[in-house]
Amino acid sequence: MKNFVLVIGSVAFDDVKTPFGERRNALGGSAVFFSMAASHFTNVRIVGVAGKDYPEDAIKMLCDHNVDTHGLEIAEGKTFRWGGVYHEDINIRDTLYTHLNVFADFKPIIPPDYQQSPFLFLGNIQPSLQLDVLNQLQKPRFTALDTMNLWIESTPDDLSKVIEKVDLLLINDSELNLLTGELNLLKGLDKVHEMGPKYVIIKKGEHGAYLSYQRSLFFVPAYPVYQPTDPTGAGDGFAGGFMGYLAACGNVSFRTMKKALIYGSIMGSFVVEDFSVDGLIDLTKNQIESRYKTLRQMVTL
Amino acid sequence: MKNFVLVIGSVAFDDVKTPFGERRNALGGSAVFFSMAASHFTNVRIVGVAGKDYPEDAIKMLCDHNVDTHGLEIAEGKTFRWGGVYHEDINIRDTLYTHLNVFADFKPIIPPDYQQSPFLFLGNIQPSLQLDVLNQLQKPRFTALDTMNLWIESTPDDLSKVIEKVDLLLINDSELNLLTGELNLLKGLDKVHEMGPKYVIIKKGEHGAYLSYQRSLFFVPAYPVYQPTDPTGAGDGFAGGFMGYLAACGNVSFRTMKKALIYGSIMGSFVVEDFSVDGLIDLTKNQIESRYKTLRQMVTL
Repeated sequence: MKNFVLVIGSVAFDDVKTPFGERRNALGGSAVFFSMAASHFTNVRIVGVAGKDYPEDAIKMLCDHNVDTHGLEIAEGKTFRWGGVYHEDINIRDTLYTHLNVFADFKPIIPPDYQQSPFLFLGNIQPSLQLDVLNQLQKPRFTALDTMNLWIESTPDDLSKVIEKVDLLLINDSELNLLTGELNLLKGLDKVHEMGPKYVIIKKGEHGAYLSYQRSLFFVPAYPVYQPTDPTGAGDGFAGGFMGYLAACGNVSFRTMKKALIYGSIMGSFVVEDFSVDGLIDLTKNQIESRYKTLRQMVTL
Repeated sequence: MKNFVLVIGSVAFDDVKTPFGERRNALGGSAVFFSMAASHFTNVRIVGVAGKDYPEDAIKMLCDHNVDTHGLEIAEGKTFRWGGVYHEDINIRDTLYTHLNVFADFKPIIPPDYQQSPFLFLGNIQPSLQLDVLNQLQKPRFTALDTMNLWIESTPDDLSKVIEKVDLLLINDSELNLLTGELNLLKGLDKVHEMGPKYVIIKKGEHGAYLSYQRSLFFVPAYPVYQPTDPTGAGDGFAGGFMGYLAACGNVSFRTMKKALIYGSIMGSFVVEDFSVDGLIDLTKNQIESRYKTLRQMVTL
C-alpha cells in the first residue's frame, strides 16, 4: 500500500500564449499539475475547489491517474482562471488576468478519511488557507510548502507562521531573494532555515535546483529539452515528482530526498514540453527512468 | 615534465567597482587570469603585450607561479586598461571605458621555443590575432578558444575562421544565443558543433557550466561562495583551471575533460572571492582539492 500524498492548491483554467502556440481553457492550477506529476509515483488526494463549469473529463483524467478527487469541491460559479503570455525568452511571462471566481470564498475542508495522510503538499495559495489545512491534519509525517512573490509581499506574517511549521519549503531563486533580502544563495539559505524548515529546495528553472539540509547542498541540473513549449505548472510538476517519489519510498532520508529531487526535475521537464498537463498524461515508467539515467550521466565522471 | 600550455590574451590594468569595494590599477587581462589559474596545475607560457608602466612585481608574481613570461612583450606606451562597475546583482556590469593603449598595435609573435606547445588557449582578443597565433604554432595537440559579444557582432567572418579550426570553444550562454540565434541550449549547441569544434563549454556563471561532446552533456555546478567580491576574470580563471588540468594530465579523453571542467569551476570560484588575481596567489593544492570534493558531493547520491 502506497503512502498517500495530500495536495491542497488551485484548480484552474489557463489561457496561455507562448512563442510556440496558444491554448485557451487549458487545465491548470497548482493542485492539478502537482497531482498529475505525483500520480506517476504514488496515490494522490486532492483538496481544492472548481466551478460548475469544470469538465467531467478533467475529473475522469485525475481519477484515471490514481488521484482521489472526493476532496475536490464543486462550487456554484466559475472555476479560477489565469491568463498569461510568455516572451520569446520563455523564462519571462506577463500575467494578463487572474479571476479568482469560486476560489475567492474557498474554505478548505479536509475530509475525515484524508486527515491521516502522511505526506502533505501545501500548494501555492494564501498562507492563511495553507495554515488552516495544516491544522486539520493529524500529524503528517512530512509537510512541504510552496509559495510565491504575492504572498511574500502581501501577507508576510501569515506566511512566516506556515513556513515555521513545515519540514520543507520549495521556492524559486527570485522568491528566495524577496523572502530573505539576500541575493546570495548561501546567505539566503541560512536565513530560510532559521525561519523553520529543515529542508529547502531552490528551484532555478532551466538552471536546475538545489536541495539544502544541515549545510549540505545537493544539486540537480534541469533536464535539457529541445522544445520547451509552455512552462506553466513546471514548478508544481517538480513538486509533484519530488513528493510523489518520497511518498512512494515511504522514507524521508536525505539520500531518498536527493533522488526525489531528480524526479522532480524530470517531471518539470515533461510539463514544459507541452501545454497544460498534456506532457504528464501518457507518460510511461520507461520514459521517466530514461530521463533519470540521462540526468545522472550528466554529472557522472 | 609537464605539458606546457600557451596562452595568448590581454594583459591589463582594471579599475573595478563592485558592491563590496573598489580597486584601481588591479592586475587583470584574460592572459593573466588564465595563467595564474592554470599555473596551479602545469607550466604556462604567456604571449601578450604590456606597456612600460607594467610593474616588475607583476612579472615576478607570474614567474613565481611557473609562468614563462619571455613571450610577454613590453612595448612603448601604456598598458591596456579596462574600467567597470558591477551592479548590486553582481552578475550585471557596465563597462566604463576600454583604453587599448599598447594593445591597439599588438602583433603577436610566438617565440621559436613556444611554437611546439602542445596545449593552446586563445584568450578573448580579436579573432584575426587568434588565427595568426594559431598559424604560428606547430600542430598543437589541443586548442581552445574564448571570445565575446564584441567579436561575434563586429568580426563574425574572422571569428568563424578561427572557430572552425579549434578543438574547443568556450562561451557563455548569452554568447551562445548571439552566435547561433538560438535561445535553446541544445539547439544552440548543435549549431556551434556544426561550425567546427568537437568540444563546447557553455559557461553560465553562478549557474554552472556544460561540456558538450558528441551529443553527450556533462554538467558541473558553480562552487557556491558566500561572498562573491569581484567576478572580473572568472571566465578566464575557469579556462585556466580547465586547460591547466588537461595539460597536466596530458590526455584529452572525455573523462579527463569532465574532471577538467570541475577544476575550471573551482578556479572561477577562487577568482570571484577577491579582487584581481588575489584569490589565485596563495592558493594551496588542499584548498583546490577540498572544493573538488565539495562539488562532487553536491551531485552524489
